[in-house]
Amino acid sequence: MRIALGLEYDGRAFAGWQSQPHGNTVQDELNRAISIIAGQPLTTLAAGRTDAGVHALMQVVHFETEVLRPLTAWVRGVNAQLPDSVAVVWAREVSEPFHARFSAFSRSYRYLLLTHPVRPALTAGRIGWYHQSLDVAAMQQAAQVLIGQHDFSSFRASECQAKSPLKNLQQLDIHECDGVISFDLMADAFLHHMVRNIVGALLYVGKGSLDTAGLQALLAARDRTKAPPTFMPDGLYLTGVGYPPEFELPSQAVPSRLTLWR
Amino acid sequence: MRIALGLEYDGRAFAGWQSQPHGNTVQDELNRAISIIAGQPLTTLAAGRTDAGVHALMQVVHFETEVLRPLTAWVRGVNAQLPDSVAVVWAREVSEPFHARFSAFSRSYRYLLLTHPVRPALTAGRIGWYHQSLDVAAMQQAAQVLIGQHDFSSFRASECQAKSPLKNLQQLDIHECDGVISFDLMADAFLHHMVRNIVGALLYVGKGSLDTAGLQALLAARDRTKAPPTFMPDGLYLTGVGYPPEFELPSQAVPSRLTLWR
Repeated sequence: MRIALGLEYDGRAFAGWQSQPHGNTVQDELNRAISIIAGQPLTTLAAGRTDAGVHALMQVVHFETEVLRPLTAWVRGVNAQLPDSVAVVWAREVSEPFHARFSAFSRSYRYLLLTHPVRPALTAGRIGWYHQSLDVAAMQQAAQVLIGQHDFSSFRASECQAKSPLKNLQQLDIHECDGVISFDLMADAFLHHMVRNIVGALLYVGKGSLDTAGLQALLAARDRTKAPPTFMPDGLYLTGVGYPPEFELPSQAVPSRLTLWR
Repeated sequence: MRIALGLEYDGRAFAGWQSQPHGNTVQDELNRAISIIAGQPLTTLAAGRTDAGVHALMQVVHFETEVLRPLTAWVRGVNAQLPDSVAVVWAREVSEPFHARFSAFSRSYRYLLLTHPVRPALTAGRIGWYHQSLDVAAMQQAAQVLIGQHDFSSFRASECQAKSPLKNLQQLDIHECDGVISFDLMADAFLHHMVRNIVGALLYVGKGSLDTAGLQALLAARDRTKAPPTFMPDGLYLTGVGYPPEFELPSQAVPSRLTLWR
């Protein structure tokens, strides 16, 4: 039987998603917890390997097991075994062809950026920070050149293991409210550090160091060394994963689970 | 010279506001940081002594010094010396009669409560949690009996050091949006655990274990042992302190500094 889980986690508490020999990753914690519930060693596979410090409102994983448990056991039972910085939000039985990574046709990320003279304290590690306000209209305009299918090599970390730098960026919406800027991105898949590199370049646009033509030239250059630096992971959230409708999985997170104030 | 500071902090990182022999309190960290900037030992006094796990969006403190520093040194300089879970948001020079605690005529608190079958992970420690939905209309109705000047002994921790249990609760607003319930309270002052005890009692109302008449009787009983348990500190925020207008201090926090989602 194949089970899919929707996960929420605070990336600050972990050394990223991917299992590592020294542990302390989300995957290590989750594998441990579901293995306790199953009474046998189980291993999970995720839609996207988030880096250290990157959060998830909805990471999707799957695992294979012959052990029969009610779906609530894979939620509440597993949550009782997990640290308080990670939780299973839903569990579903999925048909055999489903694969958390290979069945996914889109990933959605949100980057949150506080523009304020004083660094965040209550939301430290949960939001990016820039010490002054930014030209959001200029960022919105420049962002349009990145929409569509492009070679995103200029926004790709050198250690990226993706087979191709060609990705289809379907959405890059930027909104500002009371000094908090949110960047909503959706693509078929993202290169390593691609969101943080895009946000880093758009920050340069917002502070006037780069214009739309400059961003266009940067994309065309397909050269990471010409681009502004990778922005901090603090404000980055994996918010959803798109699958073919026949799997009947939630495609986006429940936003109220991250609401602290409105 | 007397300086007032507005502070924001994540209560999870500290053993409360009040300085303690083993350190690790907000006051210990702040005294250490301002003493570095001043080059001499300085001590702060706060409007309200928040407990371990209780957050502040706007705590107000003052200190006395003969050392001349630009106000930005008391913000940016001090912040460079503080851990990332606490920050000075503003600094003002205030006239001699100002006292962070004794000049304050009101304190505002917000309690945030997530009602969802799954415990919070990303906002663990930042929001209270109850595993099912609550009758918000019943809570709103019952809350009215607490408004005004009352003997709040039924909502007072046994270790409370206040001289009198008489407090004037001027505001107790309850709102619900997408399963997140916010309780906004303002009073001249609060007894120890008073907000958490009121929220604990209103939770009983919301789940149907207590009605308006029962809450009224509980208030009249002036007996803590008759009341529902103290609710968890996780969702409690000190959001503002009211002072006479001649001191020209901000009375409420900037909400966007706690916005993660909307």
